[in-house]
Amino acid sequence: MDAPPIDELIRDGDSATISAWLDQASALEIADELQRLDAADTGWAFRLLPRDRAMEVFELLDTGDQQQVLDGLRDDRVIHLLEELDPDDRARLLDELPAKVANRLLGQLSADERGLTALLLGYDDESAGRLMTPEFVSLRASMDVETAMAKIRREALDAETVYALPVLDDQRHLIGITGLRSLVVADPDTKVGDLMTTDIHSVHTDDDREKAARLVREAGLIVLPVIDSEERLVGVITVDDAMAVLEEEETEDFALHGGHSPLRASYLSVSALSLARARALWLMVLILAAALTVNVLQIFEGALEQVVALALFIPLLIGTGGNSGAQASTAVVRAMALGDVRFSDLPRIVWREARVGLLLGAMLAAAVFVPVTLLFDAELAAVVSLTLVCICTWATIAGSALPLFAKRVGVDPAVFSAPVVTTLVDATGLVIYFAIASVVLGL
Amino acid sequence: MDAPPIDELIRDGDSATISAWLDQASALEIADELQRLDAADTGWAFRLLPRDRAMEVFELLDTGDQQQVLDGLRDDRVIHLLEELDPDDRARLLDELPAKVANRLLGQLSADERGLTALLLGYDDESAGRLMTPEFVSLRASMDVETAMAKIRREALDAETVYALPVLDDQRHLIGITGLRSLVVADPDTKVGDLMTTDIHSVHTDDDREKAARLVREAGLIVLPVIDSEERLVGVITVDDAMAVLEEEETEDFALHGGHSPLRASYLSVSALSLARARALWLMVLILAAALTVNVLQIFEGALEQVVALALFIPLLIGTGGNSGAQASTAVVRAMALGDVRFSDLPRIVWREARVGLLLGAMLAAAVFVPVTLLFDAELAAVVSLTLVCICTWATIAGSALPLFAKRVGVDPAVFSAPVVTTLVDATGLVIYFAIASVVLGL
Repeated sequence: MDAPPIDELIRDGDSATISAWLDQASALEIADELQRLDAADTGWAFRLLPRDRAMEVFELLDTGDQQQVLDGLRDDRVIHLLEELDPDDRARLLDELPAKVANRLLGQLSADERGLTALLLGYDDESAGRLMTPEFVSLRASMDVETAMAKIRREALDAETVYALPVLDDQRHLIGITGLRSLVVADPDTKVGDLMTTDIHSVHTDDDREKAARLVREAGLIVLPVIDSEERLVGVITVDDAMAVLEEEETEDFALHGGHSPLRASYLSVSALSLARARALWLMVLILAAALTVNVLQIFEGALEQVVALALFIPLLIGTGGNSGAQASTAVVRAMALGDVRFSDLPRIVWREARVGLLLGAMLAAAVFVPVTLLFDAELAAVVSLTLVCICTWATIAGSALPLFAKRVGVDPAVFSAPVVTTLVDATGLVIYFAIASVVLGL
Repeated sequence: MDAPPIDELIRDGDSATISAWLDQASALEIADELQRLDAADTGWAFRLLPRDRAMEVFELLDTGDQQQVLDGLRDDRVIHLLEELDPDDRARLLDELPAKVANRLLGQLSADERGLTALLLGYDDESAGRLMTPEFVSLRASMDVETAMAKIRREALDAETVYALPVLDDQRHLIGITGLRSLVVADPDTKVGDLMTTDIHSVHTDDDREKAARLVREAGLIVLPVIDSEERLVGVITVDDAMAVLEEEETEDFALHGGHSPLRASYLSVSALSLARARALWLMVLILAAALTVNVLQIFEGALEQVVALALFIPLLIGTGGNSGAQASTAVVRAMALGDVRFSDLPRIVWREARVGLLLGAMLAAAVFVPVTLLFDAELAAVVSLTLVCICTWATIAGSALPLFAKRVGVDPAVFSAPVVTTLVDATGLVIYFAIASVVLGL
């Protein structure tokens, strides 16, 4: 059964049907529907939720949508929601709010929760420290299983997870990790030290949160320990938070890749004006870059006047250059995001991509030579074919190398994406085209 | 410390240093390095691993890279590796191998493992059934905690996870789920039925695996139950497998989005020829579509001969159209992948995007009008500005609507990506341009 379109129900003001639906829907279904509403309606619909469900639903919303909900609530409900959130989720949300609002709200939290949140807010926005929860259960290697289980029972309620348990020495240094499963299966007298593995993955508080999240995915972890500069354990990152970060980072990569700034909330809950704002800057920059193509063509205006037919192939040639550049940059950007390639691979990548571009260019040249000869003449066909070979080779090299250089100088490689590579390749492609035309046609 | 470039060590044949490195590196580091090698070297390097580490490393490789490893091993080692894999991972790998090889290997597995694998292979490639593990621990609502814990201890060794435990009735119907944490904390006399939640998420065996994986992420689960057509529990999907699927699906979306077929192994381990093959078909199709632009321009050759200056703006105009179309399609494709929008949202989306396109087009038109007037004349500036408004509006509408229609007819929406939208918008953009030019310039 499809969920009923709650947005339509809200427009109809049919609150009886809405309440009936809210009663039987799961928290996730409600969260999904809320994210499809306009910003103004999100707060309204959220207030219809019974208090006990509200928290469950709130936790499942994206940060941007959470913010829209808070905008529509009275302060006492806002505080109630914030108080119940896990410290890491709370820090993330507060960070999105205007500093004045965030500070006011922070001041109204209970001392305990305020302390935990302030601790996390002390770490950089994009760091592993910000992503971790400081509420975990740790064990000692010298404990026996019975003692360990007693400690877990005492502390389980406050901890975000107890399924993977870090083992510490006297200085709170991480020396191993064990799973609740091992403890449950083991004999009560066994020492924790005999159950733990020392082949542990961990990150530092100031490591990039994306790196941490990727490590969780690659190693198939449910918990990743976070250590400070003195190698002491200060928190753990849970798999659900890692998944959320990867989703966010990938959404960001997609957005940059498509040539717009990432949206801060779900697509449908963002207004048309905000959509336009997220895209305007890029389009302006790209059209400025494209102005270069006008200048290049002006230089070759004489050649164009002599052979108007040259103009006919401009969109096809620069389009193909853009496409093969986009192919190369997409492959490399994705490989970088997955950690498969790094800057030192540059020569190897460029050499591979140059061969790929040459192969593809030759294939396309062979495909167009006969049709162009028949429709126009062999000379023009030679120009177009030769240009395809050169443009494809150049575009794959540029498309693969630019993301690597971008990262090197601290720019998100996803920026060197389809639209940017396309625009850059356009102008140079035209120069190549007319240079070849001048030689072959003797202009 | 950066990992030493094992690929260089291998080329140097320095097996002492390699062995030393293999001894101190973690399984994940080794897997990462293996994925950076050429196909031929992967098998060679893998054989240097001590047997006990080999399995750990093998499990961390992508399916495509696993296959390259198997190609380089003798049958007995292949069987040994396969035997140790979890049934779901084994099914995924066998599915990638040529049918003849897969059947031969399947025949050499122990009867138990063969049965489990054959069961999974019976489900469709892209289904939740294929992704699940049939090895799980289930409880009954009437059990007390002590009995439940005893059952868990007995069965824990064979199960992939015991942290989330499905609760079944007498017909193996899923009626609730509980966590090992709740059991550990609870009094031994408590009934499982009092500890379980009935607000459960589940999928059917023939549901799409991406839908299942997304549910794991959205709801923050560590285990997702899978039920058959008679609503009986037949397996569970674990969070690590869900993360792997999301990575694969997102890599696929990225690839399609950049206009090439997805690679089946890591970027660096794929040969230049395979890279070219993954891109060739798309480039051919796109250049065929681009041939349309040649025809369109031929129609307007007369106008071009009269006003050669019109040619100067072709790359800028169709480039901008392509960029704004790519922005819209990226946003919608991503929102679809995240489950934020569906086909019924089409009118709402098109209406939003039309306004966005109009806004952006007007902004760009305002930006170019004065410079073009100064460099050329006001009439040409009017043509270019008007064209920008029309092209941007049209491109955002097409870019947002095409992915929705694609999904409707069963095509992956990610296909309607930057290169495809760009190429489609190019030809129509030229028609718009010359139509406006004819009217304004009176050609």
